Amino acid sequence: MFVTFEGVEGSGKSTQIGRLCAALEMAGRRVALTRQPGGCELGRTLRAILLSQKSSNLDDRAELFLYLADRAQHVAEVVRPALAAGQVVVCDRYVDSTVAYQGYGRGLDVALLTQLNEVAVAGLQPDLTLLLDLDAATGLTRAVARNDASGLAQSEGRFEAEHLDFHTRVRQGYLALAAAQPARFVIIDAAPDPDYVAQAVWQAVAARLA
Amino acid sequence: MFVTFEGVEGSGKSTQIGRLCAALEMAGRRVALTRQPGGCELGRTLRAILLSQKSSNLDDRAELFLYLADRAQHVAEVVRPALAAGQVVVCDRYVDSTVAYQGYGRGLDVALLTQLNEVAVAGLQPDLTLLLDLDAATGLTRAVARNDASGLAQSEGRFEAEHLDFHTRVRQGYLALAAAQPARFVIIDAAPDPDYVAQAVWQAVAARLA
Repeated sequence: MFVTFEGVEGSGKSTQIGRLCAALEMAGRRVALTRQPGGCELGRTLRAILLSQKSSNLDDRAELFLYLADRAQHVAEVVRPALAAGQVVVCDRYVDSTVAYQGYGRGLDVALLTQLNEVAVAGLQPDLTLLLDLDAATGLTRAVARNDASGLAQSEGRFEAEHLDFHTRVRQGYLALAAAQPARFVIIDAAPDPDYVAQAVWQAVAARLA
Repeated sequence: MFVTFEGVEGSGKSTQIGRLCAALEMAGRRVALTRQPGGCELGRTLRAILLSQKSSNLDDRAELFLYLADRAQHVAEVVRPALAAGQVVVCDRYVDSTVAYQGYGRGLDVALLTQLNEVAVAGLQPDLTLLLDLDAATGLTRAVARNDASGLAQSEGRFEAEHLDFHTRVRQGYLALAAAQPARFVIIDAAPDPDYVAQAVWQAVAARLA
């Protein structure tokens, strides 16, 4: 089973992924927790480029291709082998992030991005995608506070430095993707407290596991 | 004017590019000598990944997207500004390398690669492409000797480590590309001594400059 998490900055993905993986292990499942970008050795190099505020002159198309390179390598090296070994793979961001951020956010052609994602993953779609949906302004406030507290602002703050308009378009993109693929997506309200959200996440996953 | 050089490993591109740039400057032209991968800061990071023998587990699609990321950034950051400033841009490898190596060499779909190149360069085609054509076995022998002499084998020897069959397919790919686009390509026999080849290169370029 292949589960992906999606959502705007500050939507609480990291927290909820950690809790889901703990719950899955409690339920006796072997779990592989991973992420894009950065889930393989190549990806860690690319993540440092993609998320650093030092990469402020990164061309939109170059950014896109770096995400796709990370995705292709990660699927081949990490995701497919873990699925083949019978693990539940839980991935922080996947194909939908590219459509939401580079398509709806940056304005690149959504049909083209969908096609490029297909090339990168060679047909591997998630069984379940959990969209942690949150008002973009609330998420951005949370993310900036988190980065300030952890010193991440310089090293991984490039998207948090985008304007609110950008993040609002990203959220709308996610909602459009979820509306178009209701069988794969579950939209979870990420505004309530983490315990409540974790319960909603677990219900969605448990329903698929059953 | 935008001139690109293409050819298999060991075809003498570096030597000939250096001589052409010197000749252009003698003729009073301002020249920008650059290359893909590695012609911009991002590209230098990606070149180290792409050409190192340490990257032996690089997925074919990840490799492709890294080349495209380099290309997109390089065109936006280096090539277009240099052309806009009236310089003659001479580039060591460009779109045709992707079709020859990843398409004919690795077996990825040539029509797809052509489309992806278009996305990466946003329509910027060379005015002239010089294909230094050489028997793949001869080129490989030259390239391996050069790398051994300079200590490049580990740092940039990943393609030289491919089998002769691979390089033979790459050469055939180049010849197919040149046959399909005779107005853009000039095929130059790279087997003779460098002085002879340099003269043929200069004749081809001078004819376009006139």
